[in-house]
Amino acid sequence: MRIVLDAIGGDLAPKEPVAGAVTAARELGVEVVLVGPADVLRRELAQHNAMGLSLPIVDAPELIEMDEHAVQAVRRKKQSSVAVGLRMVRDGEADAFVSAGHSGATMAGAVFILGRITGIDRPALVTVFPALKGTIIVADVGANTDSKPEYLLQWARMASLYAQLVLGVDRPRVALLANGEEDTKGDKLVQDAHALLKTSGLYFVGNAEPKDALVGDVADVVIADGFVGNLFLKGAEAVAKFAVKKVQRELSGSRVALRAIGGLVPTALLVATSKDKPRTLLAGLLGGTAVLAAVLAPAAVKLAKSLDYRAYGGVPLLGVNGITVIAHGKSDAAAITSAIRRAKESVDRGLVAAIAAEQAVV
Amino acid sequence: MRIVLDAIGGDLAPKEPVAGAVTAARELGVEVVLVGPADVLRRELAQHNAMGLSLPIVDAPELIEMDEHAVQAVRRKKQSSVAVGLRMVRDGEADAFVSAGHSGATMAGAVFILGRITGIDRPALVTVFPALKGTIIVADVGANTDSKPEYLLQWARMASLYAQLVLGVDRPRVALLANGEEDTKGDKLVQDAHALLKTSGLYFVGNAEPKDALVGDVADVVIADGFVGNLFLKGAEAVAKFAVKKVQRELSGSRVALRAIGGLVPTALLVATSKDKPRTLLAGLLGGTAVLAAVLAPAAVKLAKSLDYRAYGGVPLLGVNGITVIAHGKSDAAAITSAIRRAKESVDRGLVAAIAAEQAVV
Repeated sequence: MRIVLDAIGGDLAPKEPVAGAVTAARELGVEVVLVGPADVLRRELAQHNAMGLSLPIVDAPELIEMDEHAVQAVRRKKQSSVAVGLRMVRDGEADAFVSAGHSGATMAGAVFILGRITGIDRPALVTVFPALKGTIIVADVGANTDSKPEYLLQWARMASLYAQLVLGVDRPRVALLANGEEDTKGDKLVQDAHALLKTSGLYFVGNAEPKDALVGDVADVVIADGFVGNLFLKGAEAVAKFAVKKVQRELSGSRVALRAIGGLVPTALLVATSKDKPRTLLAGLLGGTAVLAAVLAPAAVKLAKSLDYRAYGGVPLLGVNGITVIAHGKSDAAAITSAIRRAKESVDRGLVAAIAAEQAVV
Repeated sequence: MRIVLDAIGGDLAPKEPVAGAVTAARELGVEVVLVGPADVLRRELAQHNAMGLSLPIVDAPELIEMDEHAVQAVRRKKQSSVAVGLRMVRDGEADAFVSAGHSGATMAGAVFILGRITGIDRPALVTVFPALKGTIIVADVGANTDSKPEYLLQWARMASLYAQLVLGVDRPRVALLANGEEDTKGDKLVQDAHALLKTSGLYFVGNAEPKDALVGDVADVVIADGFVGNLFLKGAEAVAKFAVKKVQRELSGSRVALRAIGGLVPTALLVATSKDKPRTLLAGLLGGTAVLAAVLAPAAVKLAKSLDYRAYGGVPLLGVNGITVIAHGKSDAAAITSAIRRAKESVDRGLVAAIAAEQAVV
């Protein structure tokens, strides 16, 4: 399998993308084509031991800046990494494209160069979200605003296929993200999509509230307009960080108390041989507090990370004629490797063909 | 001041509303009119020592069920607590109405009986949300879906006045809830409202992402369509609970370890007089761990509560000709007292007159 990586895309390019590509080539056994300014990429790749790995470089000298207009950038800069990489997928020279660069340009480029799958009006970004119990898929998480009910139905079909093929969920339960379970909740879009989904043949379970989506025992697939879905994920991430800060504050409070009492913790080791039992007991008390604080601080950080949906290896854009995975702009090497893994999964399971086949019969 | 309380509204009525009313009458020095079936309320009130407090009962024998159609219920059941209470406000017999009952019926009743303030197309639910730094006001949190840009502008004006008069913020910063700071983010509604707010004369600071709203250092007032605002708050609440469960899981892990090691913690007190120093130290260690666990578990619960916007004393419906505060259906006595306090504040500061005066000049 050959996956094209935009090696010059993202805040940490080319260093992190190239490092992530090396790991992906080694661990996933795929060929990773690095696309970007060839001289820059050659220098970067030389920093790694890539012996025996397949990491060809394809030159794409033009750069798309983050503040450029997405559609114009990808149309004008035909030698940009996004344009070059997507053309390789279109022309059958590669199986998937992964980028942590300008996400708008990648989405516009994917529609423009790969084209939409027949029957799909608007491609959608589909993310895999870690719920308390298992995993849910959320679509759309930012490709489309002001959606029509038909789009939501199309995304529900694509996301269901994704859950079946990539996550192995036999008969995915589909829900609409709403502010209440009742049919009358949501805005007009949700209500109209509700009616469409009811007769869709999908396993539609109705509306899911944010808490249902987070717990994950109501639905496997949660559908929303891209503005709403994006806001939901950003909100979840923000609250998680907020919660972590609160916990850390409590912990640092405990630590300040420890420091104020002074060097009693190390003293504990010294007094262990003394005859002063109350001091020994106090030292142990403080030590125990420090131990739990040390255990909980990383747990809090882990929690925040588990709610950072961007850490989950990039977000596939479904509905175009080719696998396209969008990674977060701040992706480090590990995130890039995850994004390549995500792309590989979708290629392995024949996601594009499956979507096209389903659209042909509905 | 005389505040009418729907004493039969809410899941825990009449017990909790009546208890909350007694506390409010005692602590806030207001007269609380209990409206609902007089015999039921008399029996309930007799359970309390209400000596010297002003807690008259006004009979409203008809009940609105939770599954009734809001508009129909309030129009047909003229002797329901909602209809009787709101008429008292309309007729100048009371200063405000508070209910934990059918929120749709209360909102419909407020518009139908009190009427909208001239210039306000749609009244909005306005909540006070505890951010990391200070407090923010979010409107609308559920009264309106499929809003027009003009509504958002009207809510921004009302919420700014609320921040000024009730929270004492000199010149409230107003933001639109969106999925990015750039002007181009958000859906069409956000973009159109953006243009209106820019020339509104309000202190408009642009878009605020969920993280900005939660930290609270970007804006004092955050405006959104009611579906989006409601989803945002429900999402924040859900993630907070999710985070708390994760923290509690870590803590219960520590506790299990403690239990497994056995009764060493109480033993610590016994061994304090023994000569066995290592055991004393271990006992102290375990004790310290237990202490921190005991400190953090309630802190986690407190965190979840701080993100439960319904605990913040009810949500005023702004834009109608009279103070109406909607409390959560599960409100306990303390929540009812808070809701009455919120109503009192709004009456004290002349909120309705201020909104009407501002609408008359814009």
